Amino acid sequence: MKNILIIGAGKSSSYLIKYLLEKSNEEKLHLIIGDISTKNADKLINNHKNAESLIFDVFNSEQRQKLIKKADIVISMLPARFHIEVAKDCITYNKNMVTASYISKEMKELDKAAKAKGLILMNEIGVDPGIDHMSAMQVIDRIRENDAKMLLFESFTGGLVAPESDNNLWNYKFTWNPRNVVLAGKGGAAMFIQEGTYKYIPYHKLFRRTEFLNINGSGKFEAYANRDSLKYRGVYGLENIPTMYRGTIRKIGFSRAWNIFVQLGMTDDSYTIEDSENMSYRDFVNLFLAYSPSDSVELKLRSYLKIDQDDIMWEKLIELDIFNPKKKIGLINATPAQILQKILEDSWTLQEDDKDMIVMQHLFGYEIKGEKRQIESSLVVIGENQTYTAMAKTVGLPVGIAALKILKGEIKTPGVKRPITKEVYEPILKELSAYGIKFSEKKVPYLGYNPNHITG
Amino acid sequence: MKNILIIGAGKSSSYLIKYLLEKSNEEKLHLIIGDISTKNADKLINNHKNAESLIFDVFNSEQRQKLIKKADIVISMLPARFHIEVAKDCITYNKNMVTASYISKEMKELDKAAKAKGLILMNEIGVDPGIDHMSAMQVIDRIRENDAKMLLFESFTGGLVAPESDNNLWNYKFTWNPRNVVLAGKGGAAMFIQEGTYKYIPYHKLFRRTEFLNINGSGKFEAYANRDSLKYRGVYGLENIPTMYRGTIRKIGFSRAWNIFVQLGMTDDSYTIEDSENMSYRDFVNLFLAYSPSDSVELKLRSYLKIDQDDIMWEKLIELDIFNPKKKIGLINATPAQILQKILEDSWTLQEDDKDMIVMQHLFGYEIKGEKRQIESSLVVIGENQTYTAMAKTVGLPVGIAALKILKGEIKTPGVKRPITKEVYEPILKELSAYGIKFSEKKVPYLGYNPNHITG
Repeated sequence: MKNILIIGAGKSSSYLIKYLLEKSNEEKLHLIIGDISTKNADKLINNHKNAESLIFDVFNSEQRQKLIKKADIVISMLPARFHIEVAKDCITYNKNMVTASYISKEMKELDKAAKAKGLILMNEIGVDPGIDHMSAMQVIDRIRENDAKMLLFESFTGGLVAPESDNNLWNYKFTWNPRNVVLAGKGGAAMFIQEGTYKYIPYHKLFRRTEFLNINGSGKFEAYANRDSLKYRGVYGLENIPTMYRGTIRKIGFSRAWNIFVQLGMTDDSYTIEDSENMSYRDFVNLFLAYSPSDSVELKLRSYLKIDQDDIMWEKLIELDIFNPKKKIGLINATPAQILQKILEDSWTLQEDDKDMIVMQHLFGYEIKGEKRQIESSLVVIGENQTYTAMAKTVGLPVGIAALKILKGEIKTPGVKRPITKEVYEPILKELSAYGIKFSEKKVPYLGYNPNHITG
Repeated sequence: MKNILIIGAGKSSSYLIKYLLEKSNEEKLHLIIGDISTKNADKLINNHKNAESLIFDVFNSEQRQKLIKKADIVISMLPARFHIEVAKDCITYNKNMVTASYISKEMKELDKAAKAKGLILMNEIGVDPGIDHMSAMQVIDRIRENDAKMLLFESFTGGLVAPESDNNLWNYKFTWNPRNVVLAGKGGAAMFIQEGTYKYIPYHKLFRRTEFLNINGSGKFEAYANRDSLKYRGVYGLENIPTMYRGTIRKIGFSRAWNIFVQLGMTDDSYTIEDSENMSYRDFVNLFLAYSPSDSVELKLRSYLKIDQDDIMWEKLIELDIFNPKKKIGLINATPAQILQKILEDSWTLQEDDKDMIVMQHLFGYEIKGEKRQIESSLVVIGENQTYTAMAKTVGLPVGIAALKILKGEIKTPGVKRPITKEVYEPILKELSAYGIKFSEKKVPYLGYNPNHITG
């Protein structure tokens, strides 16, 4: 039996564990699943003979090292900041490792040691990052193999509520960590390049600079720019590409309404509010509006942000019950972002029978023999329920498939890696398609941002 | 002879050195003025027999300790972050010290050691902080001594160009560190309290939430809120005051136009622009606007920020020559804030015969025997020229006066201090008035923010 150590059995591990258990007899796998509580792990294992759960604390270095020493491969599903200690132990005890997180600076520094020992530390192999990398590189490599020149790469991903469960005015529910949704876009300007021109959007304008996109069969969406699209030029080997843009997908109208919270300052996570516990939702809104002894919070807000009488954004606020003077916040010394999250969770928490949805779209513009062409590649994945979500599927399956292929020696190039080489993406995308994770590709006219070739 | 060690002979030291030299025969003072270059010090000393200059590097601990050991009192005019090593040496060698900077966390931690040794580390004794503390506490203490209750404290300060040198559309020139002006307000929400209601303004709204104020004889001004007014409740002993607001003064219309730079993202100092060196001013503006192959930078900006055809803000931009396609930025890998500073310095640098101006106003609202009253206290100081500026006068004189009074034992309460006690502010304000730094006080009707006493 081969021992697979899975550290962390949170929301995103359901499909990962399911996949590996399904393969466990045939591939002779034994899963050891460690987490600070075994509750979720036990539910997912469901008494399967090839798995065991145990209480695991990543900061207990003795226990961690003992378990890693015993494993044949290690999968860390912990939040990104906890991977590094695991990774260092993997180097020490000669183990391969898989994570779905972005490569941190510290992780990157292990590249030399991993190569020296012939070890694979595979990262960024969930959905975003992960499936985005693989599906993009597959098409980019194909285009380049045909001696074509890449002109444009745009990539959009979103975690949304599935149409059948989409029943609020925001067309949005929390299908992933709500805190990350509230803080999305913070921490610096969004940067990208269009037709050779650098563009920078400050956070407070981000949600008013969305672009529209169509996904066949799923309708029209909008996307706001991700933090740093520029660095993906290097990652994807597209150093001189004139247009590179990555964005986050929302249903149309979300961002314009979300901008209200940004403008008010409600997404700030850098200071705490005095006596937040006893404030009402209405008091919270009033913190960000000018003092008046008589004017209503509603009118002050409308006037401040110039929201017309008939603007649907207003109904979105009403739906959140944000002007309620009786509902208490109940969080001690909370930041504005924490309070906003609480208010949104009242309305945007998935119900038992709600389904989530992952949507992704890439646009590839290129020139071949003097002719400009464009490929549009789209993916829609709908979850089954609240345990087997689209998010868990698109994160967990690539992780599981990669782990198994590394274990079997089918993926073997050592180092601190992301799945951007053919050796990795070809077999994984192939296997993913059997699970319904498959892009539909179509040729569209090449437009770019300068369809009439105007200069100056 | 008493040795006074002055570390740093920058812009703000001219009046300090002048004051101490004028007193040097009578008080038997010898000044040792150290800086990384002696050029400015030599100019200010002008061969006076009671002073010497020397090349001094604050990071050279041997030299630093030798000089501090020899001194009878130490004045640090360095940027705030460099004070701490000097302060530690002052504790070691039993020397009193004076700075015009805010008390840092590290400085505060020396309080116990200073008290144990009977030493004074006097800080925040320039203009803002400094004269603001002293002039405010003098009135607050007087009000409280009359058994009145403080209801409102608002305090505004600005470093501006004097009316006789005010000849641009912004009514503004750099009379102090331009970098601090460009970055003003960044780093967190502004927070204050009005009529018992907490208010928080995010940076991107700060320059649209100004308040107006009148200063007798100098006309109408505007002020935007300083970062954290709330903490001054503790500093001034006004823990339960319903209204506490501190702000920065500008001429009317400045903030509304400055907001253009904020909205575009030009004040961001957190990332660098690729190839900034060869960009034109026009290219720089275009970085923050949507891509278009044909629309002009001007029209894109007008449309994005909804600037009307006849809005004077537009003329302010034109005056800065910000749309010039030929003027090169010439700064390598610069941040947006650095580039904006460069562009503004073209227009806002003081000319040889320009004068600066310091304006300050406090409002004190209080209740005495059931009656509500208000005092308005204002200060205007105009500089002589570019060496003897209002800024240098209002920073340097309180520092010099305090240093001399500490040296003579007239100020003696030990510890890490700011000038908020009568022992300190009474004699210093008295001496300052002889130099024309004198507040004019008048009684005005009490209004507060709720003049009609509306509840709810």
